[in-house]
Amino acid sequence: MKELKEYLRGLAPESFIKRGIIGLKASLDPIKRLFEQRRVPQQGWNEEQVRTLFKLLSALDTDKDPGAARVGEREARIISPLLSEFVAGFCHGIGRSGVLFADQPKAPGGSIMYRLTNRLALDALKRLGVPNIKTALVLPLATGMSIALILATIRQQKKGKKVIYPRADHKSPLKAIYLSGLEADIVQGEIVGDAVRVPPSRIEERITDDTVAILSTTTFFPPRESDDIKEIAKICKKHDIFHVINNAYGVQSEKTMKNIRSAIDAGRVDAFVQSTDKNFLTPVGGAIIASPDQQFIGDVNQTHAGRASAAPIIQFLASILLMGLDGYQKMRQEQLENKKILKEGLIPIAERWGERLLAIENPVSCTMTLTNFDPNKVGGALYNLRVTGPRAVLPSEWGSSIDGYPHPYLVLNAAIGSRKQDVEAVLVKLEKAFSQINY
Amino acid sequence: MKELKEYLRGLAPESFIKRGIIGLKASLDPIKRLFEQRRVPQQGWNEEQVRTLFKLLSALDTDKDPGAARVGEREARIISPLLSEFVAGFCHGIGRSGVLFADQPKAPGGSIMYRLTNRLALDALKRLGVPNIKTALVLPLATGMSIALILATIRQQKKGKKVIYPRADHKSPLKAIYLSGLEADIVQGEIVGDAVRVPPSRIEERITDDTVAILSTTTFFPPRESDDIKEIAKICKKHDIFHVINNAYGVQSEKTMKNIRSAIDAGRVDAFVQSTDKNFLTPVGGAIIASPDQQFIGDVNQTHAGRASAAPIIQFLASILLMGLDGYQKMRQEQLENKKILKEGLIPIAERWGERLLAIENPVSCTMTLTNFDPNKVGGALYNLRVTGPRAVLPSEWGSSIDGYPHPYLVLNAAIGSRKQDVEAVLVKLEKAFSQINY
Amino acid sequence: MKELKEYLRGLAPESFIKRGIIGLKASLDPIKRLFEQRRVPQQGWNEEQVRTLFKLLSALDTDKDPGAARVGEREARIISPLLSEFVAGFCHGIGRSGVLFADQPKAPGGSIMYRLTNRLALDALKRLGVPNIKTALVLPLATGMSIALILATIRQQKKGKKVIYPRADHKSPLKAIYLSGLEADIVQGEIVGDAVRVPPSRIEERITDDTVAILSTTTFFPPRESDDIKEIAKICKKHDIFHVINNAYGVQSEKTMKNIRSAIDAGRVDAFVQSTDKNFLTPVGGAIIASPDQQFIGDVNQTHAGRASAAPIIQFLASILLMGLDGYQKMRQEQLENKKILKEGLIPIAERWGERLLAIENPVSCTMTLTNFDPNKVGGALYNLRVTGPRAVLPSEWGSSIDGYPHPYLVLNAAIGSRKQDVEAVLVKLEKAFSQINY
Amino acid sequence: MKELKEYLRGLAPESFIKRGIIGLKASLDPIKRLFEQRRVPQQGWNEEQVRTLFKLLSALDTDKDPGAARVGEREARIISPLLSEFVAGFCHGIGRSGVLFADQPKAPGGSIMYRLTNRLALDALKRLGVPNIKTALVLPLATGMSIALILATIRQQKKGKKVIYPRADHKSPLKAIYLSGLEADIVQGEIVGDAVRVPPSRIEERITDDTVAILSTTTFFPPRESDDIKEIAKICKKHDIFHVINNAYGVQSEKTMKNIRSAIDAGRVDAFVQSTDKNFLTPVGGAIIASPDQQFIGDVNQTHAGRASAAPIIQFLASILLMGLDGYQKMRQEQLENKKILKEGLIPIAERWGERLLAIENPVSCTMTLTNFDPNKVGGALYNLRVTGPRAVLPSEWGSSIDGYPHPYLVLNAAIGSRKQDVEAVLVKLEKAFSQINY
Repeated sequence: MKELKEYLRGLAPESFIKRGIIGLKASLDPIKRLFEQRRVPQQGWNEEQVRTLFKLLSALDTDKDPGAARVGEREARIISPLLSEFVAGFCHGIGRSGVLFADQPKAPGGSIMYRLTNRLALDALKRLGVPNIKTALVLPLATGMSIALILATIRQQKKGKKVIYPRADHKSPLKAIYLSGLEADIVQGEIVGDAVRVPPSRIEERITDDTVAILSTTTFFPPRESDDIKEIAKICKKHDIFHVINNAYGVQSEKTMKNIRSAIDAGRVDAFVQSTDKNFLTPVGGAIIASPDQQFIGDVNQTHAGRASAAPIIQFLASILLMGLDGYQKMRQEQLENKKILKEGLIPIAERWGERLLAIENPVSCTMTLTNFDPNKVGGALYNLRVTGPRAVLPSEWGSSIDGYPHPYLVLNAAIGSRKQDVEAVLVKLEKAFSQINY
Repeated sequence: MKELKEYLRGLAPESFIKRGIIGLKASLDPIKRLFEQRRVPQQGWNEEQVRTLFKLLSALDTDKDPGAARVGEREARIISPLLSEFVAGFCHGIGRSGVLFADQPKAPGGSIMYRLTNRLALDALKRLGVPNIKTALVLPLATGMSIALILATIRQQKKGKKVIYPRADHKSPLKAIYLSGLEADIVQGEIVGDAVRVPPSRIEERITDDTVAILSTTTFFPPRESDDIKEIAKICKKHDIFHVINNAYGVQSEKTMKNIRSAIDAGRVDAFVQSTDKNFLTPVGGAIIASPDQQFIGDVNQTHAGRASAAPIIQFLASILLMGLDGYQKMRQEQLENKKILKEGLIPIAERWGERLLAIENPVSCTMTLTNFDPNKVGGALYNLRVTGPRAVLPSEWGSSIDGYPHPYLVLNAAIGSRKQDVEAVLVKLEKAFSQINY
Repeated sequence: MKELKEYLRGLAPESFIKRGIIGLKASLDPIKRLFEQRRVPQQGWNEEQVRTLFKLLSALDTDKDPGAARVGEREARIISPLLSEFVAGFCHGIGRSGVLFADQPKAPGGSIMYRLTNRLALDALKRLGVPNIKTALVLPLATGMSIALILATIRQQKKGKKVIYPRADHKSPLKAIYLSGLEADIVQGEIVGDAVRVPPSRIEERITDDTVAILSTTTFFPPRESDDIKEIAKICKKHDIFHVINNAYGVQSEKTMKNIRSAIDAGRVDAFVQSTDKNFLTPVGGAIIASPDQQFIGDVNQTHAGRASAAPIIQFLASILLMGLDGYQKMRQEQLENKKILKEGLIPIAERWGERLLAIENPVSCTMTLTNFDPNKVGGALYNLRVTGPRAVLPSEWGSSIDGYPHPYLVLNAAIGSRKQDVEAVLVKLEKAFSQINY
Repeated sequence: MKELKEYLRGLAPESFIKRGIIGLKASLDPIKRLFEQRRVPQQGWNEEQVRTLFKLLSALDTDKDPGAARVGEREARIISPLLSEFVAGFCHGIGRSGVLFADQPKAPGGSIMYRLTNRLALDALKRLGVPNIKTALVLPLATGMSIALILATIRQQKKGKKVIYPRADHKSPLKAIYLSGLEADIVQGEIVGDAVRVPPSRIEERITDDTVAILSTTTFFPPRESDDIKEIAKICKKHDIFHVINNAYGVQSEKTMKNIRSAIDAGRVDAFVQSTDKNFLTPVGGAIIASPDQQFIGDVNQTHAGRASAAPIIQFLASILLMGLDGYQKMRQEQLENKKILKEGLIPIAERWGERLLAIENPVSCTMTLTNFDPNKVGGALYNLRVTGPRAVLPSEWGSSIDGYPHPYLVLNAAIGSRKQDVEAVLVKLEKAFSQINY
């Protein structure tokens, strides 16, 4: 700053320059504080500040150095500035020599960026409900592939083939198990009231010498409810097997996060995985894996083959800075309100059409029976009314996470980031859809 | 366009509006042609045109529809427009229900974009030297992870554990083999003149019932030369095992591409993998896998777990459109020229310092002995002179792809996208480095 | 759209493409409505929509036509896309052959853009309080130069040299009079209570055969209050002289706009001028001139020499679209609230320090005496506390719009676009400044 | 930088951070040099560097200071970041209290930017051929309005009403004279060979006591040739009247610039005016006025009424930095080559159709007779063939700058920034147009 003042001398009255530099310093303050504290800022930043941080850090990469002679086979050469925009200047991606989280000498800025992001991810998860963890790693892979990476790490550490999977009708985790070179050992659930739950006792019974891990689920579509991860954690500890929690969109739910905290305290959790897009409103493509066990996440890091795109990393970093902790808490609050509006709006509609709301615990979803309708017709009508994301399911279909669920049903969600207007609109449209079908 | 003319009536003389629309249509012509032909344009586009294409397609995604009521748990909600910029509006990522290349009803635009990208990738590889393929898939994973995905697919299709790997001292492929649940069976090479080669006969000898595939390499650091992929293809066909070619930065080399073409004609190639950043000047993070066997790539596609980031996909799409076929050919030409300048510049330097150029075939690299220097000191001096990407290697180190390579050596590269000024600068700096050390 | 569907055939399932196009159409709806209605939208747009409109229109200009052969001496050639960004693609500027508002054959899009902007400006002023006007023209000149242009037009239409200027201590209007080739005939005001007012009778007395116009003022710094423009309008009508109103930042004030409406109804108003930045939150550089007399504004338009920058025009257009009428009304409301907070916060501070608020009508300003302080010290202290925009004035200085104003005073403003936090901060800082000085 | 290193400690190995900072410093070097030297860089910058400079300087303005309490009536408040983009963050515009080039305490960055721009403009004009000047001022007004401003300044300094205007059929200068409160005294030219010239003797004869200035022209459409500005400069000196040169697009011509230099040396030149868009490839809207007389430009500066848009200023600044002196010289060279191609291409076409090229000196234009064609038809045919900027003129029309010019004619231009392909295309299209008409 002193230098700047010197350089500008004579281009404006000295007092003006001094005044200008005071303002400039104040603008840079949040960045300075971020470097010092390496924690999620309490108050969210604006886009300009995020861009400045990215510009500053990416300017440290060697591909920006006009004095560099670049004679590697890969030097973050890009065909045009547009390509650089897409990664905020971090063209080297992340990783080095087959290790994801390793400092890259060609990319000092990218290395700092990734390390910083991981620190913020850890800080965020701690302050959002799971303080008893030691490490977090933002992966440039969505949850499915991230789970695969974790399981492949486990495969290398423990003898055996089987991953116990309390049934949830979701293809990605099953593919992840398969991709990792292991096999899924699916445990069926049971119907309790309206909900589908997998009793921990059934899970424990299933453990054999060939079992290497349990892959549990906190958040999935109704009627499947969250696994009892605390009990599963105890079981894993007792039997010395790995425990991986698929916490897909659970960060938004204070309660779910509290359950993870309890599971860690009570038993064994080797890693829990959450989507950056479902929880932190980034585009699809990243996940955060976290653990109380620093070594294990380090091993997962080593399992990844080669470098990877920096895009999902900067997207999470941008998002967490733009929200700030206050912003996240506020959105959590809004999510709860929107879910309440959704639920209270659905009750009279259900009554009017001879249906009822199913009593199933889920942080974002509301479910109603579709006893008097053809679910396919309801789905089609809602599609035509431009409702995106509802699920109208027949009991005979794969999707209920159990065979022979007694009700056809409709799932609607008020997830984090949903707007009140979406929720209100869907209530009107649902009524319209029912009327159209019944007409 | 007729409608537009109607809407604008009275806001300018009719003849002006007509004239304006003629120009507008002409600007959109390349996009129209792309939709019609679905091939790499001969002439490169400008950034504006790429942006317009992305805007048009991403506007088809349901998250852009102001009339949509979005009640899924994941709806491409983003915290701020900045996040959307990073993926050119394709916030839904790619993939659906655990299949990578599947049309996503929430993202008509993203689906079209991905399909189009894959068509262009296929067209590009065909016209750049391998016309005898049927399919190509751009993966949102770098080469290491892409190879892992391919191998995991193979694991599910063929009994056995071993992947024969003609030794190249590169961590990523080894990690890929391990990650996929298979095991590496490393075949040692031999020194022929200055080069390190792995004789096909040694490879064939290694095949057992437990062998599922051979992972061959076209491009790696000297002294390791390219594998004889034609012979390996024949061997694979003969023994009915899979053949995967790691063609990391081989697309830039006409000769390497011709070799792949011959290998496919002569024997078996199930997939070859190339980096988007090393060959197409994107940021790190994507790869293209291609094959004469449509079914196999379809299976790989099914092996991926869940959705993924659209970022690496749009980066390749943008790049190939910006270059056009002519642009790519021109850059190939420049690469050859730069490599010649590098080689011819190194010869006198080597002579002056009592070294010599090693006779090793490689599309981008030149290698000289470092008999009279400590390689670590050369590396350090070049680092301080801001040369990025050189490799100064001791024979005792892992890196020569053989035990007991007789010379310490220095590798410098003139890869596609390198500028003449980089090559010229490195010659000056190398001389300077030698002088500093010798002083 | 039909064509688009055709072009995309086969790149995604037909129903998806259809769904995508429904969303695309809906996104374009506001633009379509704008073209049809040519009025300020009720609800504000987002930036993306504004960008799309600008891209669409500027694409109609001939410099975007790839098939054009451009052989004029001026063809909107630009050195780089960055330059185009600054004017949203409207590189031809506005105007033709020395007429500002004339359709330019090289720039169909620019011509439409300017015509549309003027329509929206007219619509905005009408709906914001002055419905009895016929025309409005957005000038790429700030208010001072705009007044000069109007006066130069008057000079050509009426014999005489003098422009009567009820004294306001503002340099720009005086320079405007001088620049236009006329002379200022300054009428002194008088003190009424705390306020400085110029009685209409004094103004009327001043009219001679040499008088061509009266330049009145609605909004200026206290203690000067607004002119009685209704009475002045009557006088101008009676004496057949031109009446120009400097309505600098009056659009934000419903009351001021109502006064202009009454003045037009009651007498003669040839033009009133308002700043785009002070009223519509654009960067500095534009003004809107409006009139019940279409012919007169046409003459002003003809008086401008040559073309001009499109930048101030697109800035206003972007701003009015982003705000929408609802947004503007909301900001007006907030301005009133902030002004109230400012006033109520100043009262106790004034009391505490032995000062009082002066009773002066002004839509945005609050004024307090500085009897017990040196105004220069107060100004300096506030500057150091990073308060921008306050005026601390000594009666002996030019600025009070009268000789011998009895009080030194401080003016603080809560203008449209001010944030509550600015107002609250200034109260704290003022207290601090007083304490520092008094210490 | 030392601070930065401190802040980043621990986020990457220290040597990496050091290496990164070396690169960052090197990237900032051009900016540092610009601040130190305040001259046009020899080599052009890239867009990224220009953006960084603008961001750095605009960050010094008080509207960016998060700690500022802004309570003025005008505080560069803007409705959205988009508006800021249009002026690269310089929302305060330029000027203060009715003086254009005055430091603005609210805008230290804007003040520095404007001062720097004026220095670069002066340096550019000096190095592009007119070293004997003392001052230059970039105006946010195109040439017409800039001339008006200059003439209004002269009106205030010298008694009299008349501006002698050697006839050029251009509306803007005539409007400028009128707008400034003066009267045009048009001196007719004569035909010499094919050219129209206004003999200095006729100009001198016209001087009376009522003459305040001569407004001469260097560059205008054929058949009008450049005025003999050296002789006119002598005449102005002799008679003690002002001399203003309209050098509209003359900067691109080394010869024209040399003539101005000679005129200054030989006699009197108070100001010469050049377009930023025609000479420096900016969007329309700015002009540079320059003079050997610092005082006079200072007076012009004082004549401007109020603030103005910063847009034309930053556009020129961006353009001159992007081009650099080398870039400008290179474009001048290309312009000469393109003009040669145009001329040599027109000769055979003219011959084929019984026309001939007219011998008229002009830095950018070529002129051919249209004896055997209806100029309107030629104009129409070229318009339909998407040729922009040609002039097909009938002798009876205003435009030849003389009454009774003997030939109808066609003017085509190869101005600075034209591309070879434009010139080549127009030759083909002209042939086509002639064929169509003759068919």
